[in-house]
Amino acid sequence: MTQAFSSLRINSDRLLDAFNQLALIGATADSGVDRPSLSEAHLAARKWLHEHIEASGFEFRTDGAGNHSAVLPCDEPSAPTLILGSHLDSVPNGGRFDGALGVMAALEVLKTLRENRINLKVQIEAMDFTDEEGTLVGLLGSAALAGHLSKENLEKPRGGRERLVEGMMRAGLTEAGMLSAARKPETLAGYLELHIEQGKRLEKSGTDIGIVTAIVGIWSYKLTFLGKADHAGSTAMEDRRDASLGASAFTLAAREMVMRDFPNCVVNVGKMEFAPGAFNIVPAQVDVSLEFRSPDAAEFERLNQALLNLAGEQAVRFGLGLQTEFFGKHAPSLMDTDVRGAFANACDELGLSHMPLPSGAGHDGQSLADLCPVGMIFVPSVDGASHSPREFTKWEDCVNGANVLLQAALRLGM
Amino acid sequence: MTQAFSSLRINSDRLLDAFNQLALIGATADSGVDRPSLSEAHLAARKWLHEHIEASGFEFRTDGAGNHSAVLPCDEPSAPTLILGSHLDSVPNGGRFDGALGVMAALEVLKTLRENRINLKVQIEAMDFTDEEGTLVGLLGSAALAGHLSKENLEKPRGGRERLVEGMMRAGLTEAGMLSAARKPETLAGYLELHIEQGKRLEKSGTDIGIVTAIVGIWSYKLTFLGKADHAGSTAMEDRRDASLGASAFTLAAREMVMRDFPNCVVNVGKMEFAPGAFNIVPAQVDVSLEFRSPDAAEFERLNQALLNLAGEQAVRFGLGLQTEFFGKHAPSLMDTDVRGAFANACDELGLSHMPLPSGAGHDGQSLADLCPVGMIFVPSVDGASHSPREFTKWEDCVNGANVLLQAALRLGM
Repeated sequence: MTQAFSSLRINSDRLLDAFNQLALIGATADSGVDRPSLSEAHLAARKWLHEHIEASGFEFRTDGAGNHSAVLPCDEPSAPTLILGSHLDSVPNGGRFDGALGVMAALEVLKTLRENRINLKVQIEAMDFTDEEGTLVGLLGSAALAGHLSKENLEKPRGGRERLVEGMMRAGLTEAGMLSAARKPETLAGYLELHIEQGKRLEKSGTDIGIVTAIVGIWSYKLTFLGKADHAGSTAMEDRRDASLGASAFTLAAREMVMRDFPNCVVNVGKMEFAPGAFNIVPAQVDVSLEFRSPDAAEFERLNQALLNLAGEQAVRFGLGLQTEFFGKHAPSLMDTDVRGAFANACDELGLSHMPLPSGAGHDGQSLADLCPVGMIFVPSVDGASHSPREFTKWEDCVNGANVLLQAALRLGM
Repeated sequence: MTQAFSSLRINSDRLLDAFNQLALIGATADSGVDRPSLSEAHLAARKWLHEHIEASGFEFRTDGAGNHSAVLPCDEPSAPTLILGSHLDSVPNGGRFDGALGVMAALEVLKTLRENRINLKVQIEAMDFTDEEGTLVGLLGSAALAGHLSKENLEKPRGGRERLVEGMMRAGLTEAGMLSAARKPETLAGYLELHIEQGKRLEKSGTDIGIVTAIVGIWSYKLTFLGKADHAGSTAMEDRRDASLGASAFTLAAREMVMRDFPNCVVNVGKMEFAPGAFNIVPAQVDVSLEFRSPDAAEFERLNQALLNLAGEQAVRFGLGLQTEFFGKHAPSLMDTDVRGAFANACDELGLSHMPLPSGAGHDGQSLADLCPVGMIFVPSVDGASHSPREFTKWEDCVNGANVLLQAALRLGM
């Protein structure tokens, strides 16, 4: 890599200006944004992006899944494409940084490359993927681009079919278009994404950049502890088969076990539902919404077995029945080692500290990881806030991330 | 007590015949009854009772609260009244024995006294109280009779105002009537009730009769454990403030503490509500519906303090906030020692084993306990089933209970 290339930097003021313009669209009173995918606010943000791309002199592209992008072509029209990107949709009442930073940084990288007349061996495309957050389907645009999207995904979306159909009509999208947005793997040189961490590990360790090792997989279950409804006054304590005891003991023990035996994994009991659910009736049934994540496929199997064993043990301990209903899984996605190396070299060159990190959250990269080399970097989130208007990343950290993205793209695209 | 009186027995066949006729009204396919207070089925049962009382040659009475009764007057018109009774209403899809046994046994005692020309020093009244179970207000008829009923009780009934008003219209009752049904304490000689146990203590110990020591009081709270909603993938386990941990640890620890330190008391976590309540979000808030019961006022204060301390400790342990909202209380009601003695003597005379027991459930006696001497006896419930079509008591146990009621009434009324 020549000295000229390695001294290239993005334009912080230009990036900040564009970032701030975008943050006004769907803005909430508490400095957040409310741009659920294909909502009016989200489509307004996309309209702004479309105009901004064309006003910046780039070719604008969209596909059957509604993904929006700017293209910086290379001299060789048949060269594969290195995609840089993220998403403009937010969770309801989310923050300004999640997704938006990655899209605007990708576009800023394109601007920097073009104004410095850098001619890479790949096409570079700055991408805004549709519905990363899952208010409709989740990782929708990237799954469509990767050819993973199925008719079933669209028939039973997690946000409800009605909401999806309304959003598609609003955006002028069709199911046939969605299902035909796949790109051929040979056209893809890779996918790079800059994102905020959504956790505290970088902040706590004082590290500038997290280089993602893997996007964790997610398995989820509904566990049902079954006891017996009894009069909560006249039934002696020792005669009760109280479903709350199994659910409570499992919740505590699962946390302890994961922290002790599976330090790379996380577990969450996000909800319990009690039946009959009255002050004066011993709970006959408690449904537990269980989710756990691991960056490693083999560890997942062990964790899964350990959690199910634990639930069974707690049910026996309190004289309860147990039903387990599997709710679904995403496999963990390993990030490409060459891309990780390019990120690390870029950090070293820029004088930025870095550390390897798994991503506990899902990202569009996991849709693409079996098609092409994929890598992600994180920048620190103040107090780890995520999916909240409190979400905040210092601007210098945002600029650091954009420069690492630029330098990694240069390394991979030369 | 003369030998002639102590050899008196109720007529088992006559009681069984009346009990079975009543059990057909509002009967469900699974041998239970569905007679919520002032429902069509409940009013049909009361119509049957009214006719049965008059066909049996007793004076029928009803009051402004809809309480139905049969009266066996004594020679002295100004003598106070010893009430024997229970209730004909049931919980939704309840059992045949709860309440109905006590009313029919009371009426059978009157029949036995009259056919044996027993002239007591008190009026004897066999009473069916309105809405013992609380599908409308709870202990409504007995509270009205005791003069405890307030306009507020009728304005915010636990079953909802609309349901109460509909029921009152159906039964031809008015608020003014309800509030004017109070009797003067000096007109009451006492209140005796036979009821099924609704627990397993008699069955497990092989005891014929439980002599109630106190009707337990009930205190209830909503405890709210407050944490922080975070991304359940990207937030490290040790950084979470997970409200489910406080709620779960409290639930387990409260049970252990009550069983260890408060063996006469019970505690129930009947419901938890999670917010936001999603698979992939760390619970920010868990509302715990807590109820606890004690037969002893001083112990109540200690139990209350111990439970609130425990909740506070578990909140601190997991870095959570805690809000406590007091939902209400009923004080425990001590049963009269003379009445308990009369029951014990009656059991001894009848060759029946007996044991003292607190009543974990509420009963109409608690409305009357500060007006006149009150006592209750329990007969064994098979498997402790209660508020369920599975509710069952062997007929010989029902007959034993009715004979103890008769003999206690003789002892108290001579």
